[in-house]
Amino acid sequence: MKPFKLTILGSNSAVPAFNRYPTAQILALNNAKYMIDCGEGAQFQLSKFNIKRSGLNHIFISHLHGDHYLGLVGLLSTLKLNSRKENLHVYGPAYLKKIIDVQLDYDARKDTGFEIIFHALEFGKSEKIMEDEQIEVYTIPLDHKVECNGFLFKEKEGSRKIIFEKIQEYNIPTHKIKAIKLGADFVAEDGTVIDNNILTAEPSKPRSYAYCSDTKYSESIIPIIKEANLLYHESTFMHDLQIIAAERYHSTSIEAAKIAKLANVKKLAIGHFSARYRNLEPMLAEAKTVFENTELGVEGTVFEIG
Amino acid sequence: MKPFKLTILGSNSAVPAFNRYPTAQILALNNAKYMIDCGEGAQFQLSKFNIKRSGLNHIFISHLHGDHYLGLVGLLSTLKLNSRKENLHVYGPAYLKKIIDVQLDYDARKDTGFEIIFHALEFGKSEKIMEDEQIEVYTIPLDHKVECNGFLFKEKEGSRKIIFEKIQEYNIPTHKIKAIKLGADFVAEDGTVIDNNILTAEPSKPRSYAYCSDTKYSESIIPIIKEANLLYHESTFMHDLQIIAAERYHSTSIEAAKIAKLANVKKLAIGHFSARYRNLEPMLAEAKTVFENTELGVEGTVFEIG
Repeated sequence: MKPFKLTILGSNSAVPAFNRYPTAQILALNNAKYMIDCGEGAQFQLSKFNIKRSGLNHIFISHLHGDHYLGLVGLLSTLKLNSRKENLHVYGPAYLKKIIDVQLDYDARKDTGFEIIFHALEFGKSEKIMEDEQIEVYTIPLDHKVECNGFLFKEKEGSRKIIFEKIQEYNIPTHKIKAIKLGADFVAEDGTVIDNNILTAEPSKPRSYAYCSDTKYSESIIPIIKEANLLYHESTFMHDLQIIAAERYHSTSIEAAKIAKLANVKKLAIGHFSARYRNLEPMLAEAKTVFENTELGVEGTVFEIG
Repeated sequence: MKPFKLTILGSNSAVPAFNRYPTAQILALNNAKYMIDCGEGAQFQLSKFNIKRSGLNHIFISHLHGDHYLGLVGLLSTLKLNSRKENLHVYGPAYLKKIIDVQLDYDARKDTGFEIIFHALEFGKSEKIMEDEQIEVYTIPLDHKVECNGFLFKEKEGSRKIIFEKIQEYNIPTHKIKAIKLGADFVAEDGTVIDNNILTAEPSKPRSYAYCSDTKYSESIIPIIKEANLLYHESTFMHDLQIIAAERYHSTSIEAAKIAKLANVKKLAIGHFSARYRNLEPMLAEAKTVFENTELGVEGTVFEIG
């Protein structure tokens, strides 16, 4: 199985506290990297956790509160200074293009090096916004104070897996293997047909990661995120502040865990913690009362997906 | 003497390296704070070095390369979220207002809480851009790839100092002291006039701080910065890269030290180090060959001024 993992670069909500950084994450599948939100300092966190900027070709921005995008122009500038050649795709609210352009237009930096290909996202519905050879990305409509999308990353179904013992048993030449992986039967020299199902096994089950921040509690996302291998759900407040959470279009630990449970995901990571919490263990303990397989998504934590 | 000190929040040039931050500084005189440049992450550095955001009413931005301003909107957003009431003055290139507005206009955050009073600066000449009860600030025209100002902070001359022995000797009542500080003579009950010069001494010599980043070597700034108690001068490269430094409108360690020597300043702080230098000691040693009283302006260093 290809390595598929999420690294948390920032776990804090808007007001900085306790050396926690604002929201940013790196999802890595094989050698490709996908960035999810890019709060201030995200590029410093990449360096800190030894994550190279190469292979990062897609950046997804959920919404335009500063703690989710203010690191973007700094990262783009660094990539420009690093003589990057590959184009970079940025997905986010249409207004984000204006924010990028007004800054990169100055000193004509926009036109040097690689191209930034901007994809303006829509809101209020789930749709496929990106697809490459290994993954599909869908929006998750969230319920926040401003237009906001979560993102669902779904690994594509791989080809069937060769059973090596069978290859040896039937003495199958190497140049035939690619076709067999794609479903072909094998015809031996004597004309015997060996059915593909004998030679191959089911591909690994595709894995998925659902990112949901920022949002108030909303069960409408459940059909989209169900059975995800990993769900990141914001948990800005502990549950005694449920009313404040709802007023501010945020969620509590219990609410995040409830969504994880209803969606029957394998694991829950919580984050986007309010600056009022220095110690996050009570928050974690509270979430675990509803959904046991919960972890804190704090800076530097790596989640293996599936 | 009022405490007058400079704290370095970031010492690195544009490409992040070795956990050094981009340029930002806090100058504090008494309880007032003045911020000079505001690179990405400046607000995190304030927290790290336990510098409260209160008392910070003036922010000066030298030029619009990202490593000098990208932390500004994050800091402004945090101040908005913290229910700050006092207006905040921002000084910088006119285009900076556009950059701020396009971001704060979103979600109407611009109109909540305090007012941001923007002062568009001119370039190519030194002029007074700010004055309060204790300080005057002048621009220093720098020679960079884009329009760029340094800043000279000049303490105002204080009132004369009371000589307490004389107050006792002439039995002067407390309510007369303020006027004497401001230059009045004292008239005793018997009509004798005691000259102010007998009762008071010269005020402390006003102190000054000159900030010069980013710039290529330029002796034209010397008349403006001369005799400063502290000069910060950028030193992006070591002197073997003098040609590259000039091409990129930056300075070398030797050039920074030469300016310090020609301007006869008391102390030199160097910074804005290229990402190619992990170890900065050779850079410091090189500068000291020309100007002995040089220090590295690295993160967390506090310079007492005068």
